[in-house]
Amino acid sequence: MIIASLMPLPAEMMLGSGWLAIDSEFRIGLAGHIEPRLRRAAGRAASRLARATGMPLPRDLATPSEDARFLIRVEGPAGEVPSLGEDESYTLKITDGRAVLHSPGPYGALRGIETFLQLVGLGGGGFGVPEAHIADRPRFPWRGLLIDAARHWIPPEVIKRNLDGMAMLKLNVLHWHLTDDQGFRVESHRFPRLHEAGSDGMFYTQREISEIVEFARDRGIRVVPELDMPAHTASWLVGYPDLASAAGPYSIERNWGGFDATIDPTREENYQFICDLMVEISMLFPDVYVHIGGDMVNGEHWKANPKIRAFAKKRGFDDKSQLQAYFNRRIHEILRRQGRDMIGWDPILHPDIPQDIVIQTARGQKWLADAARQGHQVVAGSEYYLDELKSAESYYTSDPFADEAANLTAEQQGLILGGEASMWTEFSDAENIDARIWPRAAAVAERLWSPREVVDVEDMYRRLNKVSQRLGWIGLTHQSGPLQMLRRLTDYLAIEPLRTLANTVRPLFDPRWNNQAYTSQTPLNRLVDATSPDSEIARDFALAVERYLDDPSDEDLHTALATRLGVWRDNHHALIPCIRHSPLLAEVESISTTLSRISEVGLRSLQAIQSGPPISQSDREGDLALLEGAALPSAELEVTIVAAIRSLLSAPLAMG
Amino acid sequence: MIIASLMPLPAEMMLGSGWLAIDSEFRIGLAGHIEPRLRRAAGRAASRLARATGMPLPRDLATPSEDARFLIRVEGPAGEVPSLGEDESYTLKITDGRAVLHSPGPYGALRGIETFLQLVGLGGGGFGVPEAHIADRPRFPWRGLLIDAARHWIPPEVIKRNLDGMAMLKLNVLHWHLTDDQGFRVESHRFPRLHEAGSDGMFYTQREISEIVEFARDRGIRVVPELDMPAHTASWLVGYPDLASAAGPYSIERNWGGFDATIDPTREENYQFICDLMVEISMLFPDVYVHIGGDMVNGEHWKANPKIRAFAKKRGFDDKSQLQAYFNRRIHEILRRQGRDMIGWDPILHPDIPQDIVIQTARGQKWLADAARQGHQVVAGSEYYLDELKSAESYYTSDPFADEAANLTAEQQGLILGGEASMWTEFSDAENIDARIWPRAAAVAERLWSPREVVDVEDMYRRLNKVSQRLGWIGLTHQSGPLQMLRRLTDYLAIEPLRTLANTVRPLFDPRWNNQAYTSQTPLNRLVDATSPDSEIARDFALAVERYLDDPSDEDLHTALATRLGVWRDNHHALIPCIRHSPLLAEVESISTTLSRISEVGLRSLQAIQSGPPISQSDREGDLALLEGAALPSAELEVTIVAAIRSLLSAPLAMG
Repeated sequence: MIIASLMPLPAEMMLGSGWLAIDSEFRIGLAGHIEPRLRRAAGRAASRLARATGMPLPRDLATPSEDARFLIRVEGPAGEVPSLGEDESYTLKITDGRAVLHSPGPYGALRGIETFLQLVGLGGGGFGVPEAHIADRPRFPWRGLLIDAARHWIPPEVIKRNLDGMAMLKLNVLHWHLTDDQGFRVESHRFPRLHEAGSDGMFYTQREISEIVEFARDRGIRVVPELDMPAHTASWLVGYPDLASAAGPYSIERNWGGFDATIDPTREENYQFICDLMVEISMLFPDVYVHIGGDMVNGEHWKANPKIRAFAKKRGFDDKSQLQAYFNRRIHEILRRQGRDMIGWDPILHPDIPQDIVIQTARGQKWLADAARQGHQVVAGSEYYLDELKSAESYYTSDPFADEAANLTAEQQGLILGGEASMWTEFSDAENIDARIWPRAAAVAERLWSPREVVDVEDMYRRLNKVSQRLGWIGLTHQSGPLQMLRRLTDYLAIEPLRTLANTVRPLFDPRWNNQAYTSQTPLNRLVDATSPDSEIARDFALAVERYLDDPSDEDLHTALATRLGVWRDNHHALIPCIRHSPLLAEVESISTTLSRISEVGLRSLQAIQSGPPISQSDREGDLALLEGAALPSAELEVTIVAAIRSLLSAPLAMG
Repeated sequence: MIIASLMPLPAEMMLGSGWLAIDSEFRIGLAGHIEPRLRRAAGRAASRLARATGMPLPRDLATPSEDARFLIRVEGPAGEVPSLGEDESYTLKITDGRAVLHSPGPYGALRGIETFLQLVGLGGGGFGVPEAHIADRPRFPWRGLLIDAARHWIPPEVIKRNLDGMAMLKLNVLHWHLTDDQGFRVESHRFPRLHEAGSDGMFYTQREISEIVEFARDRGIRVVPELDMPAHTASWLVGYPDLASAAGPYSIERNWGGFDATIDPTREENYQFICDLMVEISMLFPDVYVHIGGDMVNGEHWKANPKIRAFAKKRGFDDKSQLQAYFNRRIHEILRRQGRDMIGWDPILHPDIPQDIVIQTARGQKWLADAARQGHQVVAGSEYYLDELKSAESYYTSDPFADEAANLTAEQQGLILGGEASMWTEFSDAENIDARIWPRAAAVAERLWSPREVVDVEDMYRRLNKVSQRLGWIGLTHQSGPLQMLRRLTDYLAIEPLRTLANTVRPLFDPRWNNQAYTSQTPLNRLVDATSPDSEIARDFALAVERYLDDPSDEDLHTALATRLGVWRDNHHALIPCIRHSPLLAEVESISTTLSRISEVGLRSLQAIQSGPPISQSDREGDLALLEGAALPSAELEVTIVAAIRSLLSAPLAMG
């Protein structure tokens, strides 16, 4: 049987039993409206097809031809620069004889090509795609990935490969967080001290930005730059201290969190500065939206500055939020004059700001609902913060229309434009950002593209696993990178025991977030940095335990569980030489011991379930205490199989 | 204890117990002769150091400074373009307080930096390098890697990352096989039909070539282009049939082997053509050497052409070799006039060619000795053909001074310039070429750099394993690529059982080489393409069996062997779903079954050794027959653990 592994799932899909072979005769043809972008897209599809199959397909695979086995027919053009609300719909009909992708415009074709490529698999006598009839369109028009390139530097090639990943998952907005206290990452000709003094030499040249914007445009992806202000601007103030609300000098911030450094909203020259800067930014970023951040304005420097206090008093502002609203109105005015639309984080939400400002949630879905009620268009942000290291399931089950937003009127719900998987980089860098984004961002992508009714978590994980492997073909290092990090951690001794441990633990957000010792100079080279928030093995194990407890007479399952638990029990012994040798692994001795001990508990429990004698009450209590301890974080990690083992331990009681 | 994992091993090395920490204060300083190339090298070292440690080292890590913790002092300059015989010597002294690299010229510094980077590891409280006193210089001046970019297209980025790998292993010649029957891969402005008609659109632009040559030069690597002639030229003749010895039309060759297509050595215009082409080539490749191939001239078209026969008769040539020698003298003359030195494969060796032509072996070490006896400088080629899929050990133990060459006089041995690990690409492509080259080429690199006395195979493998993992940091895909290929083979089902099988088999050269069905259009997407010629696991297993048979009372070893054999025995069962699902895996059902069965034999033998009863004579005969069958190739693969299991099976007899 053919099980399609598409992600995101199409709006409508029927699969048949037929099969369209992809062999050396395979060609891609373009028909109808043909533009260079579509030709390039077909060319990329051809070379990805060659990689996905290992077949030496010819270079001129994509030709303007009606006869090709895969025909892409586009009705007409669309704006060269993608904008919000483009028609992304398409139909894809695959029969035994050929595949026809049909779309009103180029954006639908770009999405449909990705669907076709995801369908490629092995069947019949080789590679091909299953018979299918797909009619597809997105649920939300704004489906983004935020990459914070300010807190840690993310080089251009990393951005590019993530754009390829976005395209594969039909995400259509790169929200590029370019400036923050820790760095101003855009080259500015107009105000060169911004990047010169504010980036430690790590910034995007204007040429690099233009290349990335073009790269994104080719994939139907908008690029929305974020210049966070008036707070989060320490890096601006290093080179231009006159902008500040308090006297300088300023330095690039090395710590994480919120800081006092803030642009002075009362200084008229500052608006001219921002206006001029925005003119330059607008040249680089053709998208109509500019994100101005607006979060974490603590107002300390405003309170402390008599001139600012006097300004506020004169205007009758009672609190800092009114002053920030004033600042935002001025920025809005600047942007509007330049033909730009403004978007900002939910702390800018205020009765005094214009309604045409788009609000993005930074503090949860309550603000999504609030902003919509106040008539603003909204984008879900904090619901999908990937740096919080939640499971894919957690993001997947977070619907923009749920919770507070469920009570909105239909009209208010219509203001919800979509959402963004958001990768803040306090605790990730160029080395592991791919693994922090993927594959979890794919679950967000499906939430935002597919119909609301698509909610089967197990099926999502099955497809996520496949899509994750496919992402490797386009250069993402989410699988290869962590392996290399594990090799480094062992100092190039045997990697397997560490890999076994890594597969049973997951990194935790809270211990880091609450640890003030972290700075931008802290190496991210520990086990916590190389492990995944979503352990496939732990999930498999938990499901297997569940199935086994439903039917303890299943001997195969018993053996499989016992084998796995045996490997985990013995793993600490195998890992000890690495731990002794590598100072970076000293901290995992405790959690490695824990894995071993709770696996023993699991094995004892299995034994008791199958053939008795039951575990004595006092032994059980000891084991439960052990499991309780095992659930505590260690080295910022958590063992993922504790709950499943607790189920095993508790089962005989429940069954008895 | 500190065990250095350098490769190639230095000429002289003493390790101490001290430790130089690499922390955020670490800086690289340049002193003495400073040139841009050294600055760039130090910059690359800095960023590799950051990757190797995961530490956010500053961008300006490398500065002209005497006080840096790692000081690089170069006495004086050398030619900007590296040439044969550059001084590559250096000394490296590492103490608790600092490291000083000292070299007469920039090339020694480049080599020494690689040594330093390989020493970086974990110890003490974190990353650092051990106390060391190293005095190093190469044994041979010509240490190459041949990449055949003609038979399969190898894109520029793949060449570049392999140059990085070469630099890490102190290889100093990229022998770039650019033209053959299957493709002419150089853009020619002078004769554009060469690449237009002869490459299927897959050629290096002149700009790409210049970039690669510069990239290599920065790493102290010479680039020697090979334009194979007069045979192996079908791709030339597609666009320029007038050059040929027989009437056209010609087409790009899709098959492998030797063919009749040959440049006409009697046509005077051909020499003008080659002269003009060489002028263009010389502009691109500053190295003084040009490789003219010269192999596989079957002479069929010469015999069949009356004009050529008449020419030969008139000159008194009795056989084709004299005519080829005439051709080679003419090419030699063209090259000499352009200030170039000529090198060719051993079939050009002939009493009639000038002695200043360098000969490279294509047919074994006999020719190395023959050429040296005839006064030619020589480079070992066929001794290190990586495409023959031999083990690293096999290449490693092949010394240029051994066998036939052992009987040469000291002066004749002095004509041996070195050798080249050679990657012919009939059966590999851009996807798996990294895995076909690395890590085995590192064993060749050590053979050519380190003193002849360095011959400990087990120690070599220990270091090879580490260097292989380190190569991952510079972008080589020899580890990540095959994993992705295995994923594709399973159609993205569970990969582990296939990985287990892949680790116990190795690809064979002969079945492919003798299979005429292979063409340049044959997909290289089977298990044989994703497996390594050197199975680390098989080697470990064989060593463990050996140790166990020395002391069968070692219970830990018994358990370890039994566990491993148990996994292998059960693996076929786990792999069956993949085999059933994936048409590409159907062919491995047989070898997978074999692995399972012989592992059973191994388990039975273990049991008999430890606790009896002994295996009966008839059972033993059945098992031996099974092992005999298991040693046969299947799906172009061979099971690597057969010999070790045979040892187990035979042991009780031997011991009894």
